[in-house]
Amino acid sequence: MSKQTRSPIKHPLNLVDRGFFLFESDEAYCHVGLRAIFTPPEGAGPEFVRELVASMRERHDVAPTFTYTLAHHLPPLLLGPWLQLDPTAVDLDYHFRHSALPRPGSQRELGILISRLHSRPLDPSRPMWEQHIIEGLEDGRFALYFKVHHALMDGVAGTQAFIKSLATDPANPVARPIWTVDPHNTGAGPSVQPRIATLSTGLRGIVAGVADAGRLVLDAAKKVSEVRDPKNVLPFGGPTSPTLNGRISRQRRAVTQTYELTRLKAVSAAYGVTLNDVFLAICAAALRRYLEDIGEPQVRSLTAGVPVSLRQPNVAAGGNAVSMVLAKLHTELADPVERLNAINRSTSDGKAALMRKSPAAREREAVLIAGPLVAQSLLGIAGRGGLPHANLVLSNVPGPPAPHYLGGATLEEAYPLSMLMHSQALNITAFSTGGRLNIGIVGCRDKLPHLQRMANYLAVALAELEAVAKTHV
Amino acid sequence: MSKQTRSPIKHPLNLVDRGFFLFESDEAYCHVGLRAIFTPPEGAGPEFVRELVASMRERHDVAPTFTYTLAHHLPPLLLGPWLQLDPTAVDLDYHFRHSALPRPGSQRELGILISRLHSRPLDPSRPMWEQHIIEGLEDGRFALYFKVHHALMDGVAGTQAFIKSLATDPANPVARPIWTVDPHNTGAGPSVQPRIATLSTGLRGIVAGVADAGRLVLDAAKKVSEVRDPKNVLPFGGPTSPTLNGRISRQRRAVTQTYELTRLKAVSAAYGVTLNDVFLAICAAALRRYLEDIGEPQVRSLTAGVPVSLRQPNVAAGGNAVSMVLAKLHTELADPVERLNAINRSTSDGKAALMRKSPAAREREAVLIAGPLVAQSLLGIAGRGGLPHANLVLSNVPGPPAPHYLGGATLEEAYPLSMLMHSQALNITAFSTGGRLNIGIVGCRDKLPHLQRMANYLAVALAELEAVAKTHV
Repeated sequence: MSKQTRSPIKHPLNLVDRGFFLFESDEAYCHVGLRAIFTPPEGAGPEFVRELVASMRERHDVAPTFTYTLAHHLPPLLLGPWLQLDPTAVDLDYHFRHSALPRPGSQRELGILISRLHSRPLDPSRPMWEQHIIEGLEDGRFALYFKVHHALMDGVAGTQAFIKSLATDPANPVARPIWTVDPHNTGAGPSVQPRIATLSTGLRGIVAGVADAGRLVLDAAKKVSEVRDPKNVLPFGGPTSPTLNGRISRQRRAVTQTYELTRLKAVSAAYGVTLNDVFLAICAAALRRYLEDIGEPQVRSLTAGVPVSLRQPNVAAGGNAVSMVLAKLHTELADPVERLNAINRSTSDGKAALMRKSPAAREREAVLIAGPLVAQSLLGIAGRGGLPHANLVLSNVPGPPAPHYLGGATLEEAYPLSMLMHSQALNITAFSTGGRLNIGIVGCRDKLPHLQRMANYLAVALAELEAVAKTHV
Repeated sequence: MSKQTRSPIKHPLNLVDRGFFLFESDEAYCHVGLRAIFTPPEGAGPEFVRELVASMRERHDVAPTFTYTLAHHLPPLLLGPWLQLDPTAVDLDYHFRHSALPRPGSQRELGILISRLHSRPLDPSRPMWEQHIIEGLEDGRFALYFKVHHALMDGVAGTQAFIKSLATDPANPVARPIWTVDPHNTGAGPSVQPRIATLSTGLRGIVAGVADAGRLVLDAAKKVSEVRDPKNVLPFGGPTSPTLNGRISRQRRAVTQTYELTRLKAVSAAYGVTLNDVFLAICAAALRRYLEDIGEPQVRSLTAGVPVSLRQPNVAAGGNAVSMVLAKLHTELADPVERLNAINRSTSDGKAALMRKSPAAREREAVLIAGPLVAQSLLGIAGRGGLPHANLVLSNVPGPPAPHYLGGATLEEAYPLSMLMHSQALNITAFSTGGRLNIGIVGCRDKLPHLQRMANYLAVALAELEAVAKTHV
């Protein structure tokens, strides 16, 4: 009640943070999420999850990033500053939630609940994150859902914070909540961290580029010849998909698929393509089939924005190590192997073209790709007709291969659930960890009906490539 | 997908409907709710609730009121018209939700979940209602939560629709969903129903009065001498409670208490007061104790708006049968019996004064009481200082005394959960049915900490009056 806490520390909202709130609308809100499944340790009783939740609730050592809230939230005029609360002033009963699934507690019931949770915007008058523990999955398993506003961290940082919260030793009984891990590692929250110097895969990088570097856009536009490499896919060069590229509504569906990495590696080896190409190919096959189902036959290749790592093996982390290429998904091709090979040529060309460029040119290109999209969103015209910048983003985030544990429970699967924007009604992001490729699909409920079919078609596509590989090898 | 449905029928938004959307803000949203608990029939297995939900999900005969959605929702300019959807175009998978409680599934876990559900505004791009069935309560019981926008119906109509959806025969296995019952009974939705002729207890009546009858306000103000009956409590005549009367946040807590009606009747008989006086007295006692706890000692009497039925026993339902009096709660008095008697004098005087007036004068008075509150809300100044119109509304809604059933399961308890407004951070509404008085308390999470204490203090207050009654009688 009259708890004694120190007054909040004020920090100005920088351009990047402000960009996220300006970007937001009633339908397109900027949070990213994560869905994970755990198996309790052998011999755990029915009270295991309840006790785990109780032990987590005791952790009031909230990391600075998770204590940030906004003094005012009326974009664009009354926004901010950030208020850094005393950790004891963060209402954990609000942010940390214990839920349950109705019977039979299958992946279906979990998907319904997480879709609902992911559809709800965060309350801007509080630190903008939630962590949920969900019991009642079949076989005594339980789930975790984590949600954070993109102004606090991007999806990659959120996933890293999640992994860091886990133990690598199954005998470690400590269940560390994500809110005790600072993803920025600087002991300070979003505004006071060093100015972002990179164009990351996340929207954070895109907004940073646009909000702070209008100059760069102009510069890039002048040197557009450099982008007009004939082998490159140009932004706004793909078709418009009415399903993927219009205005979105407030409601999401989130579905998932998981595969053993060995299966994808076998396909990649059989065809001499990268693992990422296999990921793109199964997404392309699923998209083709799904869109045909709902009366949108594919006559031109859809294009995808694909984040590409440019990091050299012997260079330390951080810095300008990620950029984005536009790849053709060749959804107009009916043959799965022909399609896989064509995708491989498109990504190889795109990546090679990008590698030939200077770091400054790469930055210009990323801004040129992302800039108009963000500008359209800020002006409220995104998805209201006109060509889409790309049909969707397909992202593949590598995680640690070793197994991880929460209070002795084994992490089985972990899926990133990304955000949608107007003109981007679907996002597919993969996360590889513990020997599995986990694919999280988020779609606008009103534009993409029966999204579970998309997940099922991924499985069909992988099996199809495996079958042909066996015949040919 | 490409389901063949007829095009939506357009209906203009009338002033009342428009008033509700204008009234709404990010923090103060206009839905009312209901929480009920059922016990499955003897011999029901663990799949009882799942099967009940499955049978309800089959009911696509959605009543017209539940098919209404808004074409545009950007108050105040782009609002409406209503679109009346084809019943088969209503996405029941979205509106009807099956949930579960984590262990141990006590009233505490149910209260947490329903508080979360009640904190979420409805999506204005869909028909604005949700029905939830929640399994996992101790002893195999289950709960129902229903939520509807006040522009579609008020709390009384919502409660009536709920009761009508139930069977009076325990052997009737049909589980009828609320969405198949039209509360307006006209075969048409909100805008096309006959223009509301009454001032109901609900906000709907208040908004109707203000939006459509500015003339009446002026008229009433001229004849204010009629209102200035010395025994009457005047609006804005009470103290300002910083806890009850400031701006509210987005988050709610909803807690409940239930008593056998015989207990309250015994107290009412012992002291020669009405049942409603006993209800007001236990609310007053709980308020006094709760506010003292959080450092707001009561030196002046809080005032409550109390809807009063004016219906004659032999007059048919409908028409101008309800009005509101302002009652003193005498929270400044320490003695519970003295307080009860003082409350009884205040309500008797208020009701007597009201009964002496002509129907037109009663209507003027209700408008005069409610008008400034609504006007302040529309101007965005409600709760930003100044005197509150009343400190809170205390409402007591009678329901049917007979037992009711849902698919053979017995209705045990049913609580109305009302809406909050700026300058009204607490609402207590009672609903009597099946021999019980069920009290639903909704408070702003940020202004009223530990709301469960308020519920506990109601129990203390009733026990206190009972103890004194036993000593004296």
